[in-house]
Amino acid sequence: MPQTPHVERHFTAGETIRDIVIGMSDGLTVPFALAAGLSGAVSSTSIILTAGLAEIAAGSIAMGLGGYLAARSDAEHYTSERLREQQEINEKADAEKAEVMDIFISYGLSQQESAPIVEALSKHPEAWIDFMMRFELGLEKPDPKRALTSALTIAASYIVGGLIPLSPYFLFSPASTALQISVVATLLALLIFGYVKGRFTGTKPFRSSIQTALIGGLAAAAAFLIARLISR
Amino acid sequence: MPQTPHVERHFTAGETIRDIVIGMSDGLTVPFALAAGLSGAVSSTSIILTAGLAEIAAGSIAMGLGGYLAARSDAEHYTSERLREQQEINEKADAEKAEVMDIFISYGLSQQESAPIVEALSKHPEAWIDFMMRFELGLEKPDPKRALTSALTIAASYIVGGLIPLSPYFLFSPASTALQISVVATLLALLIFGYVKGRFTGTKPFRSSIQTALIGGLAAAAAFLIARLISR
Repeated sequence: MPQTPHVERHFTAGETIRDIVIGMSDGLTVPFALAAGLSGAVSSTSIILTAGLAEIAAGSIAMGLGGYLAARSDAEHYTSERLREQQEINEKADAEKAEVMDIFISYGLSQQESAPIVEALSKHPEAWIDFMMRFELGLEKPDPKRALTSALTIAASYIVGGLIPLSPYFLFSPASTALQISVVATLLALLIFGYVKGRFTGTKPFRSSIQTALIGGLAAAAAFLIARLISR
Repeated sequence: MPQTPHVERHFTAGETIRDIVIGMSDGLTVPFALAAGLSGAVSSTSIILTAGLAEIAAGSIAMGLGGYLAARSDAEHYTSERLREQQEINEKADAEKAEVMDIFISYGLSQQESAPIVEALSKHPEAWIDFMMRFELGLEKPDPKRALTSALTIAASYIVGGLIPLSPYFLFSPASTALQISVVATLLALLIFGYVKGRFTGTKPFRSSIQTALIGGLAAAAAFLIARLISR
């Protein structure tokens, strides 16, 4: 009998894709918006490139390390909650049994229907703890190797994403010309990225495509206007 | 009998705090690092302020809208998966019963112990669907009002966080002087923020405090070095 392997697969792919989406969404948007904003204030592409590359370095490190620590602290949180749950089951078995009962009653089952579940679980303490972790606390056992992979995936996606809007400023001058090419290149990248993201995350690809481009566009427009207002 | 109200409370507070942490972590780090990086390349605070404010506008909008769409797409994902699960229960009840059985067997229960659970759930289709959502797919029903609150919380936290490292550049000149004050103010803010974050998220406050300051410091140092290398 297969152990629902499709769930496992769905999950692992989901986490890597989520990390790529996190990194690349911000990577495509923020450096693009910053460069666009500065193009509204200065005409030298070298300042824009300096600011843009500094932003990509800062953003990728901040997001990557942030992702690393988030994954680490999820794992620690899980371990400490599991210990607490184990203790409660050892010391207050009756209260925990009542909690299992309550959970199933809240799902619409009667007390009689819930009793055999409580009985069965109470005979398997390890299974009982795992059950409480998932059902009472909504926590899933995190993969200990996730933290580093997650950090590197987020950081790399941010860098890849960030270099797309910035590359025209290497090649073209003045800033206003580079900006026009950057707008076209980035909107194209956002549309493609949004489409692919939609396919993987289950949102309708075309809608995801438009939404993603819209976020990037709005963020850039706001940055552009603010930079322009300040520099006048 | 209380319906485990502590779980509910824990969850709601957790999500707002998570949003504040997401926004403020990046808000304190990226604008700080960008301003520090530019201070290594230019001496005029007005360019740094322009870039910094453009970054805060772009970052808060990108992160806020990103959070909004993530929450929205979680809700849609939940709805579509729930429909699919409902259909499967209607059309392939036996296969779904076998899946419930498998889940409990994977928790270490015997076939006989699992049978009454399967029976009880199959009498309550709505409860059964909810059970499969949580247990097979690991999905929780998202709050429909989360999306907007989440977006505004993340964006506001980013702006508040970002103005702390940037404010010295309004008040002091040249950039090198403002940078020194910005470093002190931001490290202090990161230490306090890390401490408070640790208290809320269950990590040890002092360790969280040091880690948070370290991320900000590393991101800023990298940005500073890169900007300096480019501008020479």
